[in-house]
Amino acid sequence: MTRPSTAELAAFACSLADAARGVIRRYHNFGVSIEAKADESPVTIADRTAEKVMRALIEERYPEHGIAGEEFGTVRGDAEFVWSLDPIDGTKAFITGSPRFGTLIGLVENGSPVLGVIDMPVLDERFVGGADFMTRKNGSPVTVRSCAAMSDAILAATSPSMFDGVEETYAALRDVTRYQVFGGDCHNFATLASGHVDLCVEAGLQDYDFLAIVPVIEAAGGIVTDWKGDRPAPGSTNRILASGDKRVHDAALEILSKA
Amino acid sequence: MTRPSTAELAAFACSLADAARGVIRRYHNFGVSIEAKADESPVTIADRTAEKVMRALIEERYPEHGIAGEEFGTVRGDAEFVWSLDPIDGTKAFITGSPRFGTLIGLVENGSPVLGVIDMPVLDERFVGGADFMTRKNGSPVTVRSCAAMSDAILAATSPSMFDGVEETYAALRDVTRYQVFGGDCHNFATLASGHVDLCVEAGLQDYDFLAIVPVIEAAGGIVTDWKGDRPAPGSTNRILASGDKRVHDAALEILSKA
Repeated sequence: MTRPSTAELAAFACSLADAARGVIRRYHNFGVSIEAKADESPVTIADRTAEKVMRALIEERYPEHGIAGEEFGTVRGDAEFVWSLDPIDGTKAFITGSPRFGTLIGLVENGSPVLGVIDMPVLDERFVGGADFMTRKNGSPVTVRSCAAMSDAILAATSPSMFDGVEETYAALRDVTRYQVFGGDCHNFATLASGHVDLCVEAGLQDYDFLAIVPVIEAAGGIVTDWKGDRPAPGSTNRILASGDKRVHDAALEILSKA
Repeated sequence: MTRPSTAELAAFACSLADAARGVIRRYHNFGVSIEAKADESPVTIADRTAEKVMRALIEERYPEHGIAGEEFGTVRGDAEFVWSLDPIDGTKAFITGSPRFGTLIGLVENGSPVLGVIDMPVLDERFVGGADFMTRKNGSPVTVRSCAAMSDAILAATSPSMFDGVEETYAALRDVTRYQVFGGDCHNFATLASGHVDLCVEAGLQDYDFLAIVPVIEAAGGIVTDWKGDRPAPGSTNRILASGDKRVHDAALEILSKA
C-alpha cells in the first residue's frame, strides 16, 4: 500500500480537529448551564464525545491505522501509523472559564511522531506541522524565535505543582530565566512554535499530551526532548522540554538532567 | 450639579473600553511583527495609546472628574469622581501570545469603588458591574457560585512568584483548596464573577489593578477584601482576596490574615 502523503494526512488531521471543535464548542459556554446526562459534567461529555467522533472518522478512512486516545484507550497499537488523541488538553482551564484548552492530534509512524495538530477551539487558532510540512497557524507559516541566553528566556509552564518532588530542579531553572508565565497547557507549546516564548517545561505528562506537540515544534524550527535530551516517543517519558533555540535548550537540559 | 446615574456612567465606561479595544487589538497580533516607533515595544505603544485615548474621552465628557492611570499618573485625585485606568492588565500575557489580558476601568466616588469594567479585547468578553448595577457579561447578568467548604474551592492566582516572602501563608491556603489554576490576571476575577472559580488571591497589586475589580465582583454577589478583611480603597492595600461565597472567604481570611 502506498504511504499517504503528509499533506493528505495533515488535511485529514484537520478534518478530525474540525469535528472535535464542533462538539467541544457546544459544551464550552462559559457559565450557561447545560443539561448533563446522568452524573457526567459538560467537560466529560465533550471530552468523550469528541474522541468518539474522531475515532469513528479514523476507522472509516484508515481502518488499518492504530488509535491511542485519552478516553478510550488503544487499538492496533503496533500498526505502522497510530493516531494519538487528546480531545481536551487543559480540562481545568475548560472548567474554570479559560479559553486556553486545546485538542491534540498526533500521528506516530513506526514509533516516531511525524505530524501534529494543536487546535484551540475557542481561540480559533490551529497549529499544524510535521516532517516536510512546515508548521502553520491558521494556514500561515510560523517559526520559533532565537534566544541566545537563559537570562533572556521567557519560560512557560502550566502549574508549579507539576514540579512536586523536583522543586529544586525547577527552581534552579526558573532562577536563571528572564521570567515565567503560568497556565496555558498545550497553548504554551503553540506560543513557542510561533515565537512568543523561549522555553516550555512540563512534567507528569502522558503520551497523548506530547506526541502531537513534537512535530509542531520541530517543524517550526524548535527542539523537543525529554529532560535527558532524548526525542520523545510513545511511552518514553513523562517530562518534556521544548525550546526555540538550541543554545537555551542545551543550557536548560544541563539543569533538568540532574532531576 | 446632579450626580450622573450609574447607568449613564456605565455606558460611558463602556465607551472607554470600546476605544481602548480599538487601539489594543491593532497591536496584539500574535507574532506578526509591527513597526515599532523608536525603542518602544508594541505592548508599550498599545498601553500608552489606549490610556491617552481614554483620558481624552474623560476630559471631554467629565472635565471635573479625576483620572488615575497606570501610564500617566493622577490628575484631580481629590475629585468626587476619579477614574482608575489600567489599559493592559496582563502585560506578560499580551507579550507571550496569551489572550488573557484585559483593560480595567474603575470609578471611585468619594474614595469608594462604585463601578467597574473588566474588558477582554481579544476574547470579546466585557464584564460591567457596580452599585445598583448587577454585573453583566456582554449584556447578560452573571453571578458568583456558592461554595460551602475550602475542600471544594478552586483557587485562581496569576503566578506563584507573587507570593515571594509569604510562601508559607500561600502554601497553607493552597493546601486546603481543591485545586489551583494559574495565569489569568484580571480574567481570573471575571471567571469568579461568572461562577467558574471560587477564590482569587493576588499580591503586589497597584490601585489600578483592583479598583475596577471590586464593583464587578460585588455586583455579581461576591466579596472582595484585602488580606485583613477590609474593603479595598485607593491606597489601602496591595493584596486582594476575592470569593464567591462568604464561607470560603472567611476561611481563607483566617489563613491570609496571618501573613
